Amino acid sequence: MTTLKTTTLCALCLLLAKISFSQEQPDTAVFAKIKAAELSSSQIPQIAHYLTDVSGPRLTNSAGYRRAADWAIATFKKWGLTNSKLEPWGEFGKQWDLEDFSLMMRLPYATPLRAYACPWSANTDGVLKGSVVLIAPQQAMDTTYLISHAAEFKGKFILITGRPLQTQDNFNPSATRLADTSLANLKDNYMVKRSEIEQELGQLKLIQQFDLILKRSGALAVLSAGRRSANGSVFVQAAYGYKLTDAQTLPQVNMALEDAQRIKRLIQSGQAVELSLNIQGKFSTADTKGYNVVAEIPGSDPKLKSQVVMLGGHLDSWQAATGAADNAAGCIVMMEAVRLLDSLGLKPKRTIRIALWGGEEQGLYGSYGYVKNHLIDALKMTPKPEQAKISAYFNLDNGSGKIRGIYTQGNTALQPIFTEWLKPFHDLGAATVTTSSTGSTDHVSFDWAGIPAFQFVQDPLDYETRVHHSNLDDYDHLIMDDLKQAAIIVASFVYQTSIRPELLPRKPFKKEVFVFDGL
Amino acid sequence: MTTLKTTTLCALCLLLAKISFSQEQPDTAVFAKIKAAELSSSQIPQIAHYLTDVSGPRLTNSAGYRRAADWAIATFKKWGLTNSKLEPWGEFGKQWDLEDFSLMMRLPYATPLRAYACPWSANTDGVLKGSVVLIAPQQAMDTTYLISHAAEFKGKFILITGRPLQTQDNFNPSATRLADTSLANLKDNYMVKRSEIEQELGQLKLIQQFDLILKRSGALAVLSAGRRSANGSVFVQAAYGYKLTDAQTLPQVNMALEDAQRIKRLIQSGQAVELSLNIQGKFSTADTKGYNVVAEIPGSDPKLKSQVVMLGGHLDSWQAATGAADNAAGCIVMMEAVRLLDSLGLKPKRTIRIALWGGEEQGLYGSYGYVKNHLIDALKMTPKPEQAKISAYFNLDNGSGKIRGIYTQGNTALQPIFTEWLKPFHDLGAATVTTSSTGSTDHVSFDWAGIPAFQFVQDPLDYETRVHHSNLDDYDHLIMDDLKQAAIIVASFVYQTSIRPELLPRKPFKKEVFVFDGL
Repeated sequence: MTTLKTTTLCALCLLLAKISFSQEQPDTAVFAKIKAAELSSSQIPQIAHYLTDVSGPRLTNSAGYRRAADWAIATFKKWGLTNSKLEPWGEFGKQWDLEDFSLMMRLPYATPLRAYACPWSANTDGVLKGSVVLIAPQQAMDTTYLISHAAEFKGKFILITGRPLQTQDNFNPSATRLADTSLANLKDNYMVKRSEIEQELGQLKLIQQFDLILKRSGALAVLSAGRRSANGSVFVQAAYGYKLTDAQTLPQVNMALEDAQRIKRLIQSGQAVELSLNIQGKFSTADTKGYNVVAEIPGSDPKLKSQVVMLGGHLDSWQAATGAADNAAGCIVMMEAVRLLDSLGLKPKRTIRIALWGGEEQGLYGSYGYVKNHLIDALKMTPKPEQAKISAYFNLDNGSGKIRGIYTQGNTALQPIFTEWLKPFHDLGAATVTTSSTGSTDHVSFDWAGIPAFQFVQDPLDYETRVHHSNLDDYDHLIMDDLKQAAIIVASFVYQTSIRPELLPRKPFKKEVFVFDGL
Repeated sequence: MTTLKTTTLCALCLLLAKISFSQEQPDTAVFAKIKAAELSSSQIPQIAHYLTDVSGPRLTNSAGYRRAADWAIATFKKWGLTNSKLEPWGEFGKQWDLEDFSLMMRLPYATPLRAYACPWSANTDGVLKGSVVLIAPQQAMDTTYLISHAAEFKGKFILITGRPLQTQDNFNPSATRLADTSLANLKDNYMVKRSEIEQELGQLKLIQQFDLILKRSGALAVLSAGRRSANGSVFVQAAYGYKLTDAQTLPQVNMALEDAQRIKRLIQSGQAVELSLNIQGKFSTADTKGYNVVAEIPGSDPKLKSQVVMLGGHLDSWQAATGAADNAAGCIVMMEAVRLLDSLGLKPKRTIRIALWGGEEQGLYGSYGYVKNHLIDALKMTPKPEQAKISAYFNLDNGSGKIRGIYTQGNTALQPIFTEWLKPFHDLGAATVTTSSTGSTDHVSFDWAGIPAFQFVQDPLDYETRVHHSNLDDYDHLIMDDLKQAAIIVASFVYQTSIRPELLPRKPFKKEVFVFDGL
């Protein structure tokens, strides 16, 4: 290679870079308009109030989920969006809503315990009273152990014990923001194939077998405290119980680690411990379908309006609190983003479609069902025509933290594009475009389907430490300024995607990540 | 002043310093023995278990307090201490123990709320159901407002609202240790005259008037959440209710700030909110006296054994948890200190007397009663003979944090003495002798009585942020290594005080800080 040739090549590179740059230069005037509108007349606190406080916990298929979905649909209509509706995504299972709960220690003295009914728990049908048998986590998963000790469990509460509180954790802040070094080193995280999720879901449901053995032994209920259920947070979820085919096992409780440890120590030092438990939930099988909420802002360009830019987050939550960070936050931001786009009369060229998903917590069911219904033929494992028309799907589901960047999920062609789009938001703390992938939420369903699909990089705040799936995941833990920042960036990205001459560049569709799911 | 004179003076200074130094040189061989024994065979986890888990909440005069006191007395006897007994300190009031509690939101959906009955709360006599009226903190203390709005309160729960959660607090660690700069700048803190405490107690009891107005209006119960009742901690206490002369007002609940804010927002946005509340407590007036626990290691020196070194902490607690940091921690350390001194056969010269106080949380009553019974003639306001024989009182009541130094309460003569005594503990993090004063706990009663009385400087850990008077103040939040360090230092200080040729130097007794208390 000669010097001349190198120089020519470099000039060509510069020219191409310039063309590329000018192509991807975003409409910063519109971005500024969006930002000004959000900072002056945000509706985020109001949307947050209705999705959390007013709706309550939004367990998939519960009355709370339906309250939130109905409110969102009505609100989209009020704002002037079109096609605002509840859309079934497939079979989910039972509706369950808590009606009553209490767990007290009665001996050696009366004291309330910090605990919650697990979703879809069996009812106690009145107040159960009894003493407690301890079993270690590994014993709880050991069929032989459970069967050989069955006689000890009859008429007893089963407490699955764990490790004591790690007090050294308290010397770290519960809420944090991403440092520059963290942003520069974002790793691939939780991105798995659908088949791997199905495998994990299958294994989770094996727990049912152990609970059934305990039920047959005549035990009263199963109580457990995970390592993270400490310092006032109690993490409450369930691996099964909603499917019509799920056996009804025992009443199930998640409790504070410190209370579980107290009971453990009392029993180990020879004290008589007695508890009383009341769980009353309302089950219904009147409608076992799962639902998403969808609504649209129609595209304004006759040639492009059949193409779609999607954005969303999951509306369902666990039920010990009102699921504010997980994931009202994502829904609040996405709702606010479409409100901004619509109310500012920006006339996006492509159609913008917002989707609020159900069943995410049980296995990304709502988004996955949507993808199967609209975008991929699950039998042939080939894209449907609509798949080619979705330019992108933008998702938010990592808590209430502001946006610090975006994961391109290995789609390197997007790096220069999003790098340009983020430039106007450097002053808001968002500058990172990583080709790393992240998973565990609904953009994954679209990524499997070959759609450019993105979760934003968000500040962690107290998501993992305190609120994620816990009894503290409520309105007061949201940081409104962070949600406003996110709404500004999402609205801008969605708008820019809608006016871009081309669809966003996509990775090829790979059948092997999208195998039959047994649903 | 000539050079010669200066040199002579300097030599004299050095000589005096040397004498002082050799006098105050502590018995480091014994200190090392104490340290080795504690680090090899500590009983702190066991003592902690019995005072917290087994005894339960230790509200003054409650069954839990009595369980802990009885166990401590039996344990002192088992260890071989003498005069181990329950000692009445005066009139306290009612015994109250919780039997049942539940607070649920029923509308707009059913959900348990994070809440606790206040101690000595009136019973609900079954489950109360009703809607909620909000009043602001300043309205709750405004007789005119309450009377003029009485009609609105009938049949309603009264929720005293406050400010929303301050999420920025979450970016600081909940547990901290004192930095060198903090240790170098310890300020006078909470050190007040007894008359000022009496005045404050009197004002606190004014709250009773407001609650009585609400009761007369026909309200169902009063719910409130302090600013600190957040992030899973609920701070639970009461200003009145234990005295035989206290009127029985309404059922009282302390609840999580986030739940209170949720109810407030729901009502303000026009939602119908209904709650159900059940409080059942057991009251007794069979024995209304208050009690301390005392026990002794007799002095071994015939000339000095009539003199006494005291150490102690308060045994009573609030009752939403087991009062581990406040103040089982202090009792654990003091019990372990006397166990070490006794089991090592160290033969202290002066008598060592441990006291575990009752009624501290209501106004330092146990220690103050003790001082009046033994040390000060409260009518004449003059010292009794025994006052001259108490060399010192050492107290611990700032949580589970290790000792970083000691407050001399303005007694400058003690600074060189304690500075020498702490030298062997610099490697354990304790090196600070401050002439500043601290208050809010039982050494104050002895300080008022002219006795050298000390609270140690302790690392704050999560005391103020999470556990102090809260539902999280339980065994798991204790840091055992910190308590061991404290036991080593306390045992060494008490031992050294017992063998020192003279009593510790004291400040003069001032009548003006010890005025009639109206008890």
